[in-house]
Amino acid sequence: MPNQPPADIKFRAQNQLGELFAALDSGTGREVRRMLSTLTPQSVAQLLESSPPRIRQVLWKLIDHEVEGEVLQELSDDVRSQILATMDTEEMVAVMEGLDADDVADILQDLPERVMAEVLSAMSETDRARVEDVLAYDEETAGGLMDTDTISVRPNLSLDVVLRYLRRHEQLPESTDSLFVVNRKGQYIGLLPLSKLLTTDPSVTVREVVNTDVDPIPADMPDTEVARLFEKYDWITAPVVDEDNRLVGRITIDDVVDVIREDADHSLMSLAGLDEEEDTFAPVRRTARRRAVWLGINLLTALLASWVISLFQGTLDKVVALAVLMPIVASMGGVAGSQTLTVVIRGMALGQIGRSNLNWLLSRELGAAALNALLWSLVMGAITALWFNDSRIALVIVAAMVINLLTAALAGAILPVALRAMRIDPALAGGVALTTVTDVVGFLSFLGLATWYFA
Amino acid sequence: MPNQPPADIKFRAQNQLGELFAALDSGTGREVRRMLSTLTPQSVAQLLESSPPRIRQVLWKLIDHEVEGEVLQELSDDVRSQILATMDTEEMVAVMEGLDADDVADILQDLPERVMAEVLSAMSETDRARVEDVLAYDEETAGGLMDTDTISVRPNLSLDVVLRYLRRHEQLPESTDSLFVVNRKGQYIGLLPLSKLLTTDPSVTVREVVNTDVDPIPADMPDTEVARLFEKYDWITAPVVDEDNRLVGRITIDDVVDVIREDADHSLMSLAGLDEEEDTFAPVRRTARRRAVWLGINLLTALLASWVISLFQGTLDKVVALAVLMPIVASMGGVAGSQTLTVVIRGMALGQIGRSNLNWLLSRELGAAALNALLWSLVMGAITALWFNDSRIALVIVAAMVINLLTAALAGAILPVALRAMRIDPALAGGVALTTVTDVVGFLSFLGLATWYFA
Repeated sequence: MPNQPPADIKFRAQNQLGELFAALDSGTGREVRRMLSTLTPQSVAQLLESSPPRIRQVLWKLIDHEVEGEVLQELSDDVRSQILATMDTEEMVAVMEGLDADDVADILQDLPERVMAEVLSAMSETDRARVEDVLAYDEETAGGLMDTDTISVRPNLSLDVVLRYLRRHEQLPESTDSLFVVNRKGQYIGLLPLSKLLTTDPSVTVREVVNTDVDPIPADMPDTEVARLFEKYDWITAPVVDEDNRLVGRITIDDVVDVIREDADHSLMSLAGLDEEEDTFAPVRRTARRRAVWLGINLLTALLASWVISLFQGTLDKVVALAVLMPIVASMGGVAGSQTLTVVIRGMALGQIGRSNLNWLLSRELGAAALNALLWSLVMGAITALWFNDSRIALVIVAAMVINLLTAALAGAILPVALRAMRIDPALAGGVALTTVTDVVGFLSFLGLATWYFA
Repeated sequence: MPNQPPADIKFRAQNQLGELFAALDSGTGREVRRMLSTLTPQSVAQLLESSPPRIRQVLWKLIDHEVEGEVLQELSDDVRSQILATMDTEEMVAVMEGLDADDVADILQDLPERVMAEVLSAMSETDRARVEDVLAYDEETAGGLMDTDTISVRPNLSLDVVLRYLRRHEQLPESTDSLFVVNRKGQYIGLLPLSKLLTTDPSVTVREVVNTDVDPIPADMPDTEVARLFEKYDWITAPVVDEDNRLVGRITIDDVVDVIREDADHSLMSLAGLDEEEDTFAPVRRTARRRAVWLGINLLTALLASWVISLFQGTLDKVVALAVLMPIVASMGGVAGSQTLTVVIRGMALGQIGRSNLNWLLSRELGAAALNALLWSLVMGAITALWFNDSRIALVIVAAMVINLLTAALAGAILPVALRAMRIDPALAGGVALTTVTDVVGFLSFLGLATWYFA
């Protein structure tokens, strides 16, 4: 089961947390500080993510100042902004010391305009310049993901010169696997992989070994598209260029991995009306507020279904068995529909589904639905006949289930595509829209047929 | 909306597909072959993934033989096995020429034992050895993910010697960013990043610059745990060791990215009773068969709910309005519960939830549920009073909704944890279990209270 870490490892992580909480209860701040100091920033971040808000604030105060910045950048937006809310400008500037420009920008974008301006103006000249380069781009584009610390070389240099040039560096930027080759206008020409540099005769020039296969990423490309390119071509770093093809930065796989995780979580969370950035341990009130809207929307759709039922009160009065059976028709439709819906939404997220193959998909779904409708409606018909020994109700439920399962497949396949065409997020609105359809059609077909048949 | 590529890019990909289908219809195989030859193996794979099975087979035959292997390794297990099913041993061996050992092993594991043995014995001595190294480990462990083509050096060498040693290579293994330092027993000591190698004085020895911070990954670690480590520490490659700490291979981020994608997809697909490897374009019969089981299980739970309703036929006979309103109580519980369930399942997948913070989470969920129960039950009570102008039914539905929303929160938080304790996948069983609870409790509380109140 891919989403379950093995008992022992889960146990270890949970143990850390347990010990920590224990130490906190016993109130010995020093003990907790010692424990935290033994952990990597990433582990500290995970502990914070796994703690209720109040404990989070306490823990944060006990973290070694040097690592605060690294910890902060590992946190999800939601948790991070909770912690930033408790800091003043000086503290923020101090915390962001020595973070990558893209990470600082990422953090600043969560802050209110005013605070962001304050923090920026309090930063050093050079730092601000580098951060503002990144801030110039939308958070959800390549520009928002990129780092600006690239090492670029000219094509006319010999590898030997490049090697001596590198030796002058204390160290290369993190996860540097290639140098970027640019012309004198600073425009991107190609890549010079470090491995190539190490396996080639130093006397040859960069021009002779430059790799021009990798197209640079335009700074305004959406981050999900960047992620798909990295996934597709197994890149580790990729160059980012502006509209004049000038090299402006590089994107590294570690930033992309976060996008992939969020992108994949998006469908799951949205189908339940949740935000993929949602903090697992958000406080009661915020949680309640966020979910209230969703419940309200669903109450409306439920009321619509009830209104449909109310049209047939006369029939229900005569044949009470119908009231007993009607939820089955609706729920089977809902389940069948949600399967189609999930497959289609996932397929769209992976960029597999479009005009050219939608018809095939639709007929496939209808075919599969027809087979299952036949199977389970007959089963249900038999059960009904035995339960209420009334063949007429049995016939009605068979017909109603067939109608609703086919409708479900149709709705499950078409709704997400239609919603996207309307620029509405299918993952968010698809589920509600679908159950509305399957409930209404389910009750309408079952009770409608019964009314007509028993009249 | 993270899961939606921008119109133009979607358009481009879909255009390729459109043109391709058009070319296929016009029946000019040469034209299609030309189009395919202009695409990268990754793009060809995407086209195959996006095509119905019959077209897939046709396309496959038109693909340039050189790239068949690369295309194959880019495909999802489900699609890949469909294509392999049409090949004989010689063809398979030919196709796998020049693939990484881990990719070949990955492909072989999808094949029937007998076929796998045939293919292995038909491979060259050295290839077979390297593949069998990987096959020795479970597909879902670090060993199953790893590549065996590592470059290792001894600590006593000078960097200068290492540099000359590397020069002797035609090229380094793909995405090599570090060399591995091992002792004469072949046991792992640490990393030597290429960037370090390039920025340090060549006269120093490996021992002086070796990075020993990165712990090696035990070959039997589950792949999801490996993925979490890569995500956490932003690794690009990591060493894999056996139980004696001997270096046996390396894992690169590109293989990990696939694990992350699957891991994240797992919850989404499972909640709808689907397999995350499911082929979006699987043929009708396979699709129908796979979903039949799920629908059957849901029919059973729906029947249980109906049986509960049937206990109150007498009351329904007296007050038909109850039949109209009862689905609302059930559906609101289902929605509220699924929100809690999703948050908890996601939190568990991210390793955030365990014994130490479960209680806090539970009380948070109950708190949020209480607030929303209050709000929406009162709203619904008012609507009922106006609609049926019967204050008694209004009171009953208020009480029933409060009960069911609290139950939903309780079930949504506890079920996944309980299921996992029973070694049942919460993502797969959680949804059904939850709706069963919310339906039964919903109908039971609403009709039960009404019966008692109206008696």
